Amino acid sequence: MKKWVYFFGVGKAEGRGDWKDLLGGKGAGLAEMTRIGLPVPAGFTISTEACDHFYKNGRKHPPGMRQEVTKALTRLERITGKKLGDPQNPLLVSVRSGSARSMPGMMETILNLGLNDRSVQGIAGSTGNERFAYDAYRRFVQMYSTVVTGLPKEHLEERLRAMKQRLGVKEDTQVSAVGWKDLIRDYKEYFQEKTGAAFPEDPQEQLWGAIGAVFGSWMAEKAVTYRRVEKITGLLGTAVNVVQMVFGNTGDNSGTGVCFTRDPSSGEKIFYGDYLVNAQGEDVVAGIRTPMHLEEMAKRMPRVYAQLEKVRAKLERHYRDMQDMEFTVEDGKLYMLQTRTGKRTPAAAFCMAADMVREKLIGKEDAVQRIQPADIERLFYPVIKANADTDGLAKKLLARGINAVPGAAVGKVVFSAQSAEEWTERGEKVILVRRETSPEDVGGMAVAQGILTATGGKTSHAAVVARGWGKCCVVGCDALDIDYNAHQMQAGGRVIREGDWITLDGSEGLVYQGQLPLGNPTLPPAYATLMKWADELRRLRVRTNADTPQDARKAREMGAEGIGLCRTEHMFFTDFEQPEKSHERQLAIQEMILAETREAREKALAKLLPFQRRDFIGIFKAMDGYPVTIRLLDPPLHEFLPHEREKQEELAKKLGITVEHVARRVEQLHEANPMLGHRGCRLAITYPEILEMQVRAIIEAAIECQREKVKVIPEIMHPLTLDEKEMRILEQGTRRVAEELIAKAKVKLPYAVGTMIELPRAALLAGSIAKVAEFFSFGTNDLTQTTMGLSRDDAGRFLPDYVDEKKAGIFASDPFQSLDTAGVGLLMRWAVKEGRATRPNLKVGICGEHGGDPESVKFCHELGLNYVSASPFRVPIARLAAAQAAIQEKLEAKKPKKKANGKR
Amino acid sequence: MKKWVYFFGVGKAEGRGDWKDLLGGKGAGLAEMTRIGLPVPAGFTISTEACDHFYKNGRKHPPGMRQEVTKALTRLERITGKKLGDPQNPLLVSVRSGSARSMPGMMETILNLGLNDRSVQGIAGSTGNERFAYDAYRRFVQMYSTVVTGLPKEHLEERLRAMKQRLGVKEDTQVSAVGWKDLIRDYKEYFQEKTGAAFPEDPQEQLWGAIGAVFGSWMAEKAVTYRRVEKITGLLGTAVNVVQMVFGNTGDNSGTGVCFTRDPSSGEKIFYGDYLVNAQGEDVVAGIRTPMHLEEMAKRMPRVYAQLEKVRAKLERHYRDMQDMEFTVEDGKLYMLQTRTGKRTPAAAFCMAADMVREKLIGKEDAVQRIQPADIERLFYPVIKANADTDGLAKKLLARGINAVPGAAVGKVVFSAQSAEEWTERGEKVILVRRETSPEDVGGMAVAQGILTATGGKTSHAAVVARGWGKCCVVGCDALDIDYNAHQMQAGGRVIREGDWITLDGSEGLVYQGQLPLGNPTLPPAYATLMKWADELRRLRVRTNADTPQDARKAREMGAEGIGLCRTEHMFFTDFEQPEKSHERQLAIQEMILAETREAREKALAKLLPFQRRDFIGIFKAMDGYPVTIRLLDPPLHEFLPHEREKQEELAKKLGITVEHVARRVEQLHEANPMLGHRGCRLAITYPEILEMQVRAIIEAAIECQREKVKVIPEIMHPLTLDEKEMRILEQGTRRVAEELIAKAKVKLPYAVGTMIELPRAALLAGSIAKVAEFFSFGTNDLTQTTMGLSRDDAGRFLPDYVDEKKAGIFASDPFQSLDTAGVGLLMRWAVKEGRATRPNLKVGICGEHGGDPESVKFCHELGLNYVSASPFRVPIARLAAAQAAIQEKLEAKKPKKKANGKR
Repeated sequence: MKKWVYFFGVGKAEGRGDWKDLLGGKGAGLAEMTRIGLPVPAGFTISTEACDHFYKNGRKHPPGMRQEVTKALTRLERITGKKLGDPQNPLLVSVRSGSARSMPGMMETILNLGLNDRSVQGIAGSTGNERFAYDAYRRFVQMYSTVVTGLPKEHLEERLRAMKQRLGVKEDTQVSAVGWKDLIRDYKEYFQEKTGAAFPEDPQEQLWGAIGAVFGSWMAEKAVTYRRVEKITGLLGTAVNVVQMVFGNTGDNSGTGVCFTRDPSSGEKIFYGDYLVNAQGEDVVAGIRTPMHLEEMAKRMPRVYAQLEKVRAKLERHYRDMQDMEFTVEDGKLYMLQTRTGKRTPAAAFCMAADMVREKLIGKEDAVQRIQPADIERLFYPVIKANADTDGLAKKLLARGINAVPGAAVGKVVFSAQSAEEWTERGEKVILVRRETSPEDVGGMAVAQGILTATGGKTSHAAVVARGWGKCCVVGCDALDIDYNAHQMQAGGRVIREGDWITLDGSEGLVYQGQLPLGNPTLPPAYATLMKWADELRRLRVRTNADTPQDARKAREMGAEGIGLCRTEHMFFTDFEQPEKSHERQLAIQEMILAETREAREKALAKLLPFQRRDFIGIFKAMDGYPVTIRLLDPPLHEFLPHEREKQEELAKKLGITVEHVARRVEQLHEANPMLGHRGCRLAITYPEILEMQVRAIIEAAIECQREKVKVIPEIMHPLTLDEKEMRILEQGTRRVAEELIAKAKVKLPYAVGTMIELPRAALLAGSIAKVAEFFSFGTNDLTQTTMGLSRDDAGRFLPDYVDEKKAGIFASDPFQSLDTAGVGLLMRWAVKEGRATRPNLKVGICGEHGGDPESVKFCHELGLNYVSASPFRVPIARLAAAQAAIQEKLEAKKPKKKANGKR
Repeated sequence: MKKWVYFFGVGKAEGRGDWKDLLGGKGAGLAEMTRIGLPVPAGFTISTEACDHFYKNGRKHPPGMRQEVTKALTRLERITGKKLGDPQNPLLVSVRSGSARSMPGMMETILNLGLNDRSVQGIAGSTGNERFAYDAYRRFVQMYSTVVTGLPKEHLEERLRAMKQRLGVKEDTQVSAVGWKDLIRDYKEYFQEKTGAAFPEDPQEQLWGAIGAVFGSWMAEKAVTYRRVEKITGLLGTAVNVVQMVFGNTGDNSGTGVCFTRDPSSGEKIFYGDYLVNAQGEDVVAGIRTPMHLEEMAKRMPRVYAQLEKVRAKLERHYRDMQDMEFTVEDGKLYMLQTRTGKRTPAAAFCMAADMVREKLIGKEDAVQRIQPADIERLFYPVIKANADTDGLAKKLLARGINAVPGAAVGKVVFSAQSAEEWTERGEKVILVRRETSPEDVGGMAVAQGILTATGGKTSHAAVVARGWGKCCVVGCDALDIDYNAHQMQAGGRVIREGDWITLDGSEGLVYQGQLPLGNPTLPPAYATLMKWADELRRLRVRTNADTPQDARKAREMGAEGIGLCRTEHMFFTDFEQPEKSHERQLAIQEMILAETREAREKALAKLLPFQRRDFIGIFKAMDGYPVTIRLLDPPLHEFLPHEREKQEELAKKLGITVEHVARRVEQLHEANPMLGHRGCRLAITYPEILEMQVRAIIEAAIECQREKVKVIPEIMHPLTLDEKEMRILEQGTRRVAEELIAKAKVKLPYAVGTMIELPRAALLAGSIAKVAEFFSFGTNDLTQTTMGLSRDDAGRFLPDYVDEKKAGIFASDPFQSLDTAGVGLLMRWAVKEGRATRPNLKVGICGEHGGDPESVKFCHELGLNYVSASPFRVPIARLAAAQAAIQEKLEAKKPKKKANGKR
């Protein structure tokens, strides 16, 4: 029989800290904290397996779970000496969700459960505080009505507001017990009116209602959206934590707080957090009241603070990572309610990882494992240009807030998540401005450039969510006076309307009017340290996709160890050294395409030769000592000709031919499915003179560089091959030109001839193609298109449905972003095996977009590729992912093997 | 050491009749005839391996070959008692090509080799016929000059004509020895002038020149073209046969002939052939002189004829097949020069095969093996409609000729092979009319509808080549007066110009003016016999691709055992029962596509439901008792909407919407690569209501048919799937609708749900897809497109280069015609293995165009598919190919195994 419920309390726990998948992060943290002797209120966790069963069986609880809950509840009552629903000494519990991955505020919580018209009197009696008891009761009724029964929150708040108006008070704290009693009656009447049933008095009924609501919240729209945005998949569901209530709102000797063992923004080793006096936990996260800093708390309650400091040290030592903790102080007694690995900014992630290695808390491999690929990406997010005129800046400053997530963002102001989504859809860049954000806003937060809130601290919803995404965020900017109805806000005496530009500086917590120029960030010193460690650990080489000397140089800075894909056709469009001369190249390629004889084509190609040669020289020099893989002409020729009549006329004039000639050729070149048409090496088969010119440019450039003592390693790559014989024709054509030039120059110039593997047939016949090709490079963009029969240009119409969990949900992720390892990956595995069986030293790489995708890089490592090639800015991500793959492989190898490896 | 030369003579031979690959057809035949005691002049054969070596080593002869030739020549001299170049008693030889597959007239021959200024006197002396000797000599000089040295034939013939003019004679036979001597001198001067060297007197030099020329002719343009047209691949090269000369032109007691052991047109068991008195062999084949029939010869030379009759019987018994023989009579003595399996018309092929089984000459399996798939295709070639008004016919009759190849053809007259190719290229149907055809004409002959020649008999070049292709051909039509220069001909007093329509009746040998109506042929009784035998022998089932009740009925007549592919979208275009009502369906589908809500789509689909249901009922009835696989909607939706503004306006009007709405939707649906776009089951994922309507129509039709006691076996097929989860969604959607209807109707209706395998990913993941799909059908059209990255619509621009042996020659054949077994086939093999591993009783078929291609059918048999599906007219071809595959498999199994089977 499966166990569904796990108890914890008084120093013992059935669960463990590493059972997150089973107990959720919160449940596992509570169990672990209990085990290591921290002050944790007792309770029990209903497992995620129960949630999974719930959804797989028409929303029914698994058999046996009810009995287990009853048993756990009895045990909880025994430990606490209280009874659920008892009129004298009632047990109150919180019922909280908690899945294996943190989903801040996405799922439901019910507090103070166990209160009814009788037990509330018991609380009033035992606390001697009637007002507190009825305040807790009204909070419970409100939460239960909205969360479990689904009544609209606004209607209940309306009643709260009306009551306060009747009493003539402004703040909740001013409401007396009588006022709360009135409100509770009012709430219950409303409940009866809306549901046709009385508000449940039976605590058992309340408990099961709450458990059902927590399970139900797993599939609520906002939770599903969040998982989609965060690409969280593979979880069983949420656990349910039923825990004895402790109260932070019993007076000024009570309170509640959220803290981090280190600063989550900078990574500094300082104790960092917020504390709200006389408040319940949710108040901090909701960001409605701006809390005090921990230092302040240290002054006010030094004993509790000292205890908290010890907890901090113990937890960090125990978990060997920065922790994000929730605690409550009830009448001067500290209770830990949650601990989890804390979210952090990219810079903090690097800083902490490097520090912890220095502190010998973790090893280098752990440190490298801790960095998320996205951390690197976000590290390069722009900042406001340092050299901007400071005086001008000051004039534009609108307001100061709390620097929740560093970076900078420029966008047009919108005041709702929905507007953020709509404006973004039509191509606008927006900054989402809210008083505070709530879980319903995640869609809009995800698309915004940055987030700005008027309230909340660094632990508010807005800050936590934005930090997870590394998205620039300023919170607690109380100078903002937002008027949602008028679609505007005021700050510093200025009115900012919806659609006006503002700029956020998340690192300093500043808000500017207008669009400020953004620039590149300064990388934290820990970045270089971590990347060095990563480079030492990885096996996979990392190259770059670069078509120009500029890109090549940039990529070297980013740590690229060569070029994996240099697309020669881009050189036909643009002169990167002298952009104003681009038209000369364009005209030559157009002349070549319009030529009607081989001789005329060769004449036009001769004009292109010096351009290509010069570009190659620049690239070879930038890559001195590193290999450069050059792909010969790939796109269909029609892409080089103008399709509009006017431009055709212009071209005809320049070339001294008729416009009909141009139009006819464009028509001739039109294809029903250009992706599967006359392109790639098929062009070289039809027009060998193109291949000859390109090889000549490459080899002549290489010879010239070699003379200047540059170390050149050219690799000539034929695209879109599908057959050994075809490859042989291309290889012979290539070598004929190259050998002649090399012999004439009387030099020694090693070079390689290879091919892209981007058609299923090429992968299938890799064994025979490797007889000719000296290297393979997987062109996974096209390989994905052909293997899946998916045109990247057209898939927008239905691929979202295929990826969306709420629609068909067929793919876990977009196969153009992350390799389809099951399908495309199987072909790659086959090709590597067959290719190396023919040619054991076959060099194999990947040069599709996937070369910069961490998951795909990991797969490439597993396949034993020699290198991945990524765009310059993704090179560090690939370096990290490659290191992580190598570390994981080592860890896997250490694990005892369970079964024979199922891989083919 | 490899042996390069094989001797034969006086009853003994080093070669054998079944060594065609090594000795060529001619060499193997000569060896075999020698072995079985037939009168064959002695000689030797240089093997095809020597030719292969020649081409693989820069046109150099293999080491040792020269010595072997010298040895064989010595042996020949010993046997004949003559010496090459001897001034008294010289040996003369013929040097002929001969490859493993007959290539009539495609390669070179040199006769009378060994003649020079001295040895010619020996011949004159030994024959006592100086004129004959010098005639032979001038023929040799002419052949050598053109064939070996490559001088233009016209220039030499010019000189011949000039000489005759000088002498004032018209016919060659009127030229005296002196005249020939003059001409020889003239030829030799011309030779010296053109080549700068004297004509070779040394017979050894002559011999090696001739051998080189024969090898060279293997790669001559006409030979390469012929092999391409005939799809002859995998041969090593040509053999060279050096044989003692015998002369059919020594007088009226000599002659030369070609004969068949049975009538190659009708298949009748009669001795059939042509004989030319006092002529050399080439004269018959060239078709310049019209020869006498064999009966005539029987009267003139009864002794020789009787001997020939015996040879005929012996050879047919020996080879167990109809033979095509060449012979020469030299001064009353019969010499057999060649025997080979004779080409025959399709009807003759069936007739002979059935007859020979009855005669117990061969078994049923042999008989089935003897039929070429193309024979069946050609059997269905049209004939002139039998019920045509006979009087009208008579008036249109232009001329009578010899019925060389049966069938009928209509086309526009052209007078050159080049025009035939050009006119066909621009979409015209042509009849090629020539005085006689020559090997240079094969390109034009291949594209013409039919061939008509003024000269030649049934064994002329035109007849032999056309018969091989089953192409309607009339020869020896001497009433035609062709004027090549004026591009016209006269016949029966009428002038027919280039471009005028004529009709050929190849069965009767008649030529008509204008376009006569063509109809279906009457099949020979042997057809049914052979097909019955084939059906008994095959394992593979044969279904058909049919979209209408009419096609379904036709396919049943052709022997289809069910429908493998019923494309439902065709039903959206056309009402096959009431074509005038097609617009109703079109409008409904267009309305569905233009709808903006699910409700509106469902409304439009409801209109389509009764149409589809009615079509399905018709199809089920036609296939009573046989399975019907119905593919749900496949093409992209834009195909159903008009793309021209005018038609869009019309449609908008009919539907009461704006033309902008229509245009916008067309624009929305436009795709860059529709082949890889929103089509196939992706439509059902996006619009489940389409799937629902179609399943409803199928199941309702099936229920209705079942009530009428029709046995229905519906198989519902989802196109373009690529994933198990996707397949699961489709399957569940299908079953939900079907089960509900079946339950409501209270019937039992077995049906299957399966999928096409037409994307590489589907093939790769076949194991998981088979968890859901009950059957697979390989859609090899799309599977070829995606696996090879080849758009069928666009490949015309470069695929011909890929298939053309003279260009890149990368593929042996067009992969859209014959399965790419190496690439696409590998995926199929994998999918069958993986699919059946999951579901052992998985039914697997193929429904691409390849289902009717014999080579592909054979591959499907090997893969162990359950069935192939072909278009109705290709069903018998598939039945035959399936039987032949089964027979071959049996034969292979009997062979001793050489090595472990290399197949994956």
